[in-house]
Amino acid sequence: MRSFRPTAESVPPANVNYRLRLPGGLPVDKQPLNPLAFLLKAAQVYPNKLALAHPDVDHPVFYSYAVWTQRVQNLAYALIQFGICPGDRVAVIAPNSPLIADAHHGVLAARAVICPINTRLTTPEVAYILEHSGSKLILVDHELAHLVQDARIPVIVANDSGRADDPYEQFLSNGRRYSGDRGWPGLEWEADENAPAALCYTSGTTGRPKGLPGAYLTGIANAHETQYVLILPMFHACGWTFPWAITFACATQITLRKVSYPHIWHHLLYSGTTHYCGAPTVQIGLVNAPDARLLSRPVVAIVAGSAPTAHLLGELEKKNIHPVHVYGLTYTYGPFTRCYEQVEWASLPLDQRARYMARQGLSYAISDDVRVVYPPKEDEQDDVNMELVDVPKDGKTVGEVVLRGTMVMKEYFRDPDATRKAFRGGYFSTGDLAVMHSDGYIAIQDRSKDIIISGGENASSLAIEQELASHPDVLEIAVVARPHPRWGERPMAFVILHPQRASFWDGRHATFAESLKLHARGRLPGFACPEWVEVVAELPKTSTGKIQKAVLRKIVAKL
Amino acid sequence: MRSFRPTAESVPPANVNYRLRLPGGLPVDKQPLNPLAFLLKAAQVYPNKLALAHPDVDHPVFYSYAVWTQRVQNLAYALIQFGICPGDRVAVIAPNSPLIADAHHGVLAARAVICPINTRLTTPEVAYILEHSGSKLILVDHELAHLVQDARIPVIVANDSGRADDPYEQFLSNGRRYSGDRGWPGLEWEADENAPAALCYTSGTTGRPKGLPGAYLTGIANAHETQYVLILPMFHACGWTFPWAITFACATQITLRKVSYPHIWHHLLYSGTTHYCGAPTVQIGLVNAPDARLLSRPVVAIVAGSAPTAHLLGELEKKNIHPVHVYGLTYTYGPFTRCYEQVEWASLPLDQRARYMARQGLSYAISDDVRVVYPPKEDEQDDVNMELVDVPKDGKTVGEVVLRGTMVMKEYFRDPDATRKAFRGGYFSTGDLAVMHSDGYIAIQDRSKDIIISGGENASSLAIEQELASHPDVLEIAVVARPHPRWGERPMAFVILHPQRASFWDGRHATFAESLKLHARGRLPGFACPEWVEVVAELPKTSTGKIQKAVLRKIVAKL
Repeated sequence: MRSFRPTAESVPPANVNYRLRLPGGLPVDKQPLNPLAFLLKAAQVYPNKLALAHPDVDHPVFYSYAVWTQRVQNLAYALIQFGICPGDRVAVIAPNSPLIADAHHGVLAARAVICPINTRLTTPEVAYILEHSGSKLILVDHELAHLVQDARIPVIVANDSGRADDPYEQFLSNGRRYSGDRGWPGLEWEADENAPAALCYTSGTTGRPKGLPGAYLTGIANAHETQYVLILPMFHACGWTFPWAITFACATQITLRKVSYPHIWHHLLYSGTTHYCGAPTVQIGLVNAPDARLLSRPVVAIVAGSAPTAHLLGELEKKNIHPVHVYGLTYTYGPFTRCYEQVEWASLPLDQRARYMARQGLSYAISDDVRVVYPPKEDEQDDVNMELVDVPKDGKTVGEVVLRGTMVMKEYFRDPDATRKAFRGGYFSTGDLAVMHSDGYIAIQDRSKDIIISGGENASSLAIEQELASHPDVLEIAVVARPHPRWGERPMAFVILHPQRASFWDGRHATFAESLKLHARGRLPGFACPEWVEVVAELPKTSTGKIQKAVLRKIVAKL
Repeated sequence: MRSFRPTAESVPPANVNYRLRLPGGLPVDKQPLNPLAFLLKAAQVYPNKLALAHPDVDHPVFYSYAVWTQRVQNLAYALIQFGICPGDRVAVIAPNSPLIADAHHGVLAARAVICPINTRLTTPEVAYILEHSGSKLILVDHELAHLVQDARIPVIVANDSGRADDPYEQFLSNGRRYSGDRGWPGLEWEADENAPAALCYTSGTTGRPKGLPGAYLTGIANAHETQYVLILPMFHACGWTFPWAITFACATQITLRKVSYPHIWHHLLYSGTTHYCGAPTVQIGLVNAPDARLLSRPVVAIVAGSAPTAHLLGELEKKNIHPVHVYGLTYTYGPFTRCYEQVEWASLPLDQRARYMARQGLSYAISDDVRVVYPPKEDEQDDVNMELVDVPKDGKTVGEVVLRGTMVMKEYFRDPDATRKAFRGGYFSTGDLAVMHSDGYIAIQDRSKDIIISGGENASSLAIEQELASHPDVLEIAVVARPHPRWGERPMAFVILHPQRASFWDGRHATFAESLKLHARGRLPGFACPEWVEVVAELPKTSTGKIQKAVLRKIVAKL
């Protein structure tokens, strides 16, 4: 940290005034619900606190809240100076780094809409999103610049150096020129509380604008439910609102360009990290890393994407890492349920506790209702006024997870037909299938497309995985449907063996397959037992560590 | 707890559904910002957790979140059944007890407005508030029933017993009849986000309606900034939103009918209390109580009303009690600034630290702007569009504290003229005078009427008290202006001696007065030194422990 000096333009002027202009006519008892307010507040309360640390790169940078907030103002003015108008979309393509952290606040300060793009997409997919979103400008990390080399809109490249000769820093300097005369009071809060804050895409198909109050409230909720992030990529659904939640908590964020277990362990051990986010596959990598050891302070791990297994839970706890299991979608502002741990679970055996904790749980503190309802019948119209009927709380009846409230996207961007279908009954239909237990906790059974229809029975690939993962030699597992001449479909399991057991089974994968099938038969109904087991070295994953079942299904289709 | 059984009507039916009806036409990405939602969520997440404990009375009661929430539903239906319509005011007069805790949620569930009345008011003052507020019904504690014996609207008396023969319980039973067929889905969320949640009065003059989103957001903020309450009376500005904040935190609240140090120490020592609220005078009583001792767990004390002195701060810390200094008004939803402690303060000497902590600090995390501006000139119009000018951040220039945002009252009830004056420049004018320090922290100098104009200089009574309180023999002190033939006004100090030193000065109060004046001369400018010192046994205080300077001024006027 000693060797780094922020650019002169990053240092706020003396007597900086953090007050934006209010829209005319706003009643005295109303205020804009805008997550930019968190950052301005943090800069006032803890100006000298470390806000943003980006240590594990060639050119490390470290910004206090005062400095980072000035950079955000510079970005806002640079965007406005460039010609970005209120409501315009600004695309951002970057791994976790100051660029994308800045953009989560600076784009909003210019009253524009942030459009974060997945860094793992192909050039045509990125081109589609740029076109569909109507983005006016691209902010891109130097390692990803090739994705937009043919883009027909202007591009600002960041070399991720924080040094004065970096093109991104030069762009920021354009904005800094307005800090004296105009500063924050020269910017105005967005007046329309229905204005979008972000436009998110997953795989380049449909855009999902999300509103400012949702960013504000979900940011608060995530600061309340959890607190602090290390790993989660920010391009993924605006990092579940953590780029905003962190500033509400006035916490320090450490940005890592990629998942690197030695670096993560370094920060867990020596950087005072208290919280981090990651999919189970990241957590598995973490507990099995050579640096893994017992932490002297408890650390909270926010786990999403899929449920932690009993084995993983036990391994995390042995290291003083305490998982919080949340569930969400890119259609929402990240997590909207949490498996709230009950006091009495603490005394249960690990297996039973893991079973409880694997459920997706109850809706977030600021979330409106989350329900599990009967899926629509084939002849039913997609009607926003239709009545949804809840499944019984029996832990058995499978229904669809639906929800509503400020955490939900506003619509499908430029696609009113898709919006109407998605908002059936006045709720957003997630497409995820779940049961509801007697305590009101929901438990996802599958994405509707991941269900395996075996002999006419619906088998949940997640439930099968959960059971098979309890085999002691299994490190990771994924189960998909494979066509079967007699039963229609049967489950096929792809397994990564535990490193310490891989050599034991070397050359005897067929025997391991029998062992796993035997394990399954004691735990699952016949139609859910895997017909095929394949040991693999790795599983196809998304950039956020989610297993790509679509890829596995393609492999299966060729068998 | 073992001997208490809630009434049969308090126990929720099996399969209770916690979903209220949504107003028609609400977009999928909007939700009602209503603090009732916190209670419903807590009942779903921790149904069996102790929500409300009322232990120190003849008939102790203990309600879990599931049971308490059912009682709130019963109250809502009882009110509706009685004829309360959306927007109607329901008056509540009670010490901290289940009745007033219930009302903070149940009145909102009936879409009515809670009007909590100060229990220390006189019968005519109460009559005025009932009349001015247009309340339709009174919920009153049995010990305060005399205050409304001549009321011209119906009264429900609670014997604070929680037993079936209590008239309040019988009233609740009326509501319970609807829990089966209608339940929560039979109630509807208030559709108008501008609807008031509460109508608060202080001394029977002006009413201050406050909106639902403010209750929601301030409740979250208080749960975030602090967490848990023991003492603060709920009738006082809706208990600073803590009756709602506690449910957001899913915490347990212990209701005490009055400030009783033996009971408070019992709960600090044995009930797992983590947080409590109280004015400095309550804190002084607490650290000097015979039961006071070092706590094995840290406890957070939320201090408001006036700043803790260095002495008090030291005494609290010796007991492992850590004060958080907040500042607010009944015109707002309680506190809107907090003296955020900076890490570097920890290593400062106690006196210096107390000096920093005595400041009112910075605005709350969810609060909009708090400013210190030049007071209006005599010829200036009260104009909502006039431009307010900030005083410099020099720690010297005195201005008026103004603020805006969801925490602020909507208006003066039925008094547009007063509203226009109060909302000068689009901000609420607090009437409190303050300076702003270079770090942006505000420090209240005085209420405008408490300033002492001594020889043409403005002397802050609070600043004088702060300095005089550092005399080792002073327990509590209050300073007011007393007319002076030469200087116009001069400060007069009323002092309560420390119990351990009172006998030392017995019969020698004049000598003590000289000792205090000598102490003052080293610390204060001449015009701010007390001209008169009177040792008293007690100081006149409001029900919330604030010293009543108006009463002291009346005493002074007769001298």
